[in-house]
Amino acid sequence: MPSAISVITLLTDFGTRDYFVASMKGVILNINSQTRIVDLSHEVAPQQVAEAAYLLKSSYRYFPDGTIHVAVVDPGVGSSRRPLLVTTSRYFFIAPDNGLLSYIFEEETGVEVRVIENKQYRLDSEGATFDGRDLFAPAAAWLTRGQSPGSYGRLIQDAVKLPIEEPAVAHKVLTGRIVYVDRYGNLISNITPLHLKELQGVARKSASEVTIRLAGIEIQGLVGCYADGDKATPRAVINSNGQVEVFIKEGSAADILKCTRGEKIELF
Amino acid sequence: MPSAISVITLLTDFGTRDYFVASMKGVILNINSQTRIVDLSHEVAPQQVAEAAYLLKSSYRYFPDGTIHVAVVDPGVGSSRRPLLVTTSRYFFIAPDNGLLSYIFEEETGVEVRVIENKQYRLDSEGATFDGRDLFAPAAAWLTRGQSPGSYGRLIQDAVKLPIEEPAVAHKVLTGRIVYVDRYGNLISNITPLHLKELQGVARKSASEVTIRLAGIEIQGLVGCYADGDKATPRAVINSNGQVEVFIKEGSAADILKCTRGEKIELF
Amino acid sequence: MPSAISVITLLTDFGTRDYFVASMKGVILNINSQTRIVDLSHEVAPQQVAEAAYLLKSSYRYFPDGTIHVAVVDPGVGSSRRPLLVTTSRYFFIAPDNGLLSYIFEEETGVEVRVIENKQYRLDSEGATFDGRDLFAPAAAWLTRGQSPGSYGRLIQDAVKLPIEEPAVAHKVLTGRIVYVDRYGNLISNITPLHLKELQGVARKSASEVTIRLAGIEIQGLVGCYADGDKATPRAVINSNGQVEVFIKEGSAADILKCTRGEKIELF
Repeated sequence: MPSAISVITLLTDFGTRDYFVASMKGVILNINSQTRIVDLSHEVAPQQVAEAAYLLKSSYRYFPDGTIHVAVVDPGVGSSRRPLLVTTSRYFFIAPDNGLLSYIFEEETGVEVRVIENKQYRLDSEGATFDGRDLFAPAAAWLTRGQSPGSYGRLIQDAVKLPIEEPAVAHKVLTGRIVYVDRYGNLISNITPLHLKELQGVARKSASEVTIRLAGIEIQGLVGCYADGDKATPRAVINSNGQVEVFIKEGSAADILKCTRGEKIELF
Repeated sequence: MPSAISVITLLTDFGTRDYFVASMKGVILNINSQTRIVDLSHEVAPQQVAEAAYLLKSSYRYFPDGTIHVAVVDPGVGSSRRPLLVTTSRYFFIAPDNGLLSYIFEEETGVEVRVIENKQYRLDSEGATFDGRDLFAPAAAWLTRGQSPGSYGRLIQDAVKLPIEEPAVAHKVLTGRIVYVDRYGNLISNITPLHLKELQGVARKSASEVTIRLAGIEIQGLVGCYADGDKATPRAVINSNGQVEVFIKEGSAADILKCTRGEKIELF
Repeated sequence: MPSAISVITLLTDFGTRDYFVASMKGVILNINSQTRIVDLSHEVAPQQVAEAAYLLKSSYRYFPDGTIHVAVVDPGVGSSRRPLLVTTSRYFFIAPDNGLLSYIFEEETGVEVRVIENKQYRLDSEGATFDGRDLFAPAAAWLTRGQSPGSYGRLIQDAVKLPIEEPAVAHKVLTGRIVYVDRYGNLISNITPLHLKELQGVARKSASEVTIRLAGIEIQGLVGCYADGDKATPRAVINSNGQVEVFIKEGSAADILKCTRGEKIELF
């Protein structure tokens, strides 16, 4: 279990226009005004749990040990879905039990999952529509005040997990999916250098000999960085998160290839 | 008067793309680098004072005692409209005198309103277009350095107030207004459980027997949370700010009902 | 050289939707959890170096001495373009060598430019697409831990500078450019009160007698503030950054005049 230093990150689909995120920050600072609050993102597409799970996966590990990651994308707010406190060997995670923490369960060690049941860590409020402010934010802030995870509620073993599809090689073809489209329109797949190595072992090809097929087009070989692309042609690169990514230099691959999250990508 | 701990919130219509908000933060940190600055929102629709007033009302009370709330939505910048410093029993507020603090005057106790006249708390600048940076930000920062409210300027009694329309029951009909539309398209009214109770006393109806009329449609009864809705049908709920809110589960009620701020809502 | 207090500003074209900015903040806090991080802007149009340079110019000077300004708009990421550490008599700047710091080189004193070569200040990562997280963020954070600029790399004299066009008076006409369009649609030029004074000396006109020509229209005289405009007519004002700016009260001059960055503006 990590020691509780006071960094809290917030990941939501609340946007930054309304009073939602600010209210959460107010609640946290009211419990511990020394907390450092970092916005992970508030622009998750409304209620897209899988997108939020991917954003969390891509950034949580860069924060200091003991960071409390709060993620609230919560179509089931006010229903019986359970609020969770997860401790790992490095971090705390606070989120609804809807699959948002799927990658955490897979990648972290020392995982313990608890239901947040202790009503002392809740804000009183008339309605049941804003657990971000009334439940998740104070639960996080009380951790920075030294409350023990054990005091939050009972351990469980049946937390919800999203089905995470793994890329696979069959008949010398490596098949994966686009798992994220970033603001530049770069198409990020779930294919890692390890998968690529498996393909190359089977197909006996170098990185520059591999063909990438996506959305009806074929790209020849992987380049080393964005600057190696040119302005008209889609290229593929291994990005800094260790994933095969399709891009168009100074353009949007998503727009030009009319490609979105979930699209199939094949390497051979 | 609250003690001056160093949390400053910023509420503006400046957006986050330009250099406006960052300049305000620079000015504040240059006066007191220990200040914790929290963005309340910078996405108020340009020059919509009433919208900003509502956002402030919905979030200010969650912050710790002594927080300095700075709100700059200011169509009259550079004109003779007065800059205000308001102290209450819990908070400080700094804003132009254009009605932005209307709800604060109504809801807070121990309210004292001063005009910011002391030029020592101003930045020198050639033009007169950016009081957020040159006047409001330094005024807030100097409070965190212990300057007394009395040193800012004279007390006044005639601060501008927006007309705030109260819901009312007549002929067994409770009439209110949509006062805010959030990013999900949820339609938030000014009707509270107290108003509802008044209606129920007159009409002798339970919460599930009340009909909600809005934008040409009728909704039967209030549900307990968003999860109780379904994807096709508008529903009404008492939200966590204690207001009747019309929503469509995983959809935008504003888009589907073609409804905006100011629309009439009737309960009977 | 400034002493290293711990304020770091971030200016990027990364947006706030993806995991990019949060990852940079995580890296910084992991090296020094006491750092105060301020978002300068993350909404620079993708890969628009000149726009970022202008945003930095407009805000950096309001921050406390010793602030570390990190600017990452970097079409050449992963290529051989050099990463720079610039020290001035007041600040640190960390950015790619692509002209982003052009105004800093012009306006600051005591400028020393170094290439960041020391690999100890880099994060290990598989790909070469995210220098914001892997190179620029840790380079900034290690400064807050007291590492000396000299330890980063060798001094250079040939940093890239954008061509900065200066307004000029010829035949009693002062010609400048629109250098920035803000979120309100205000058109900000590179013409300062000094240029205006030069014109007025030659043309013998008062500020109210000067005509402003832009995008096919003419505006008579400069007003004192936005409130002096009216809702239908474009007006010109000297803004609080000391630049001639064309605006339409409670409207967008950019939309109505169909005018963008780079447009010629003439005063006579």
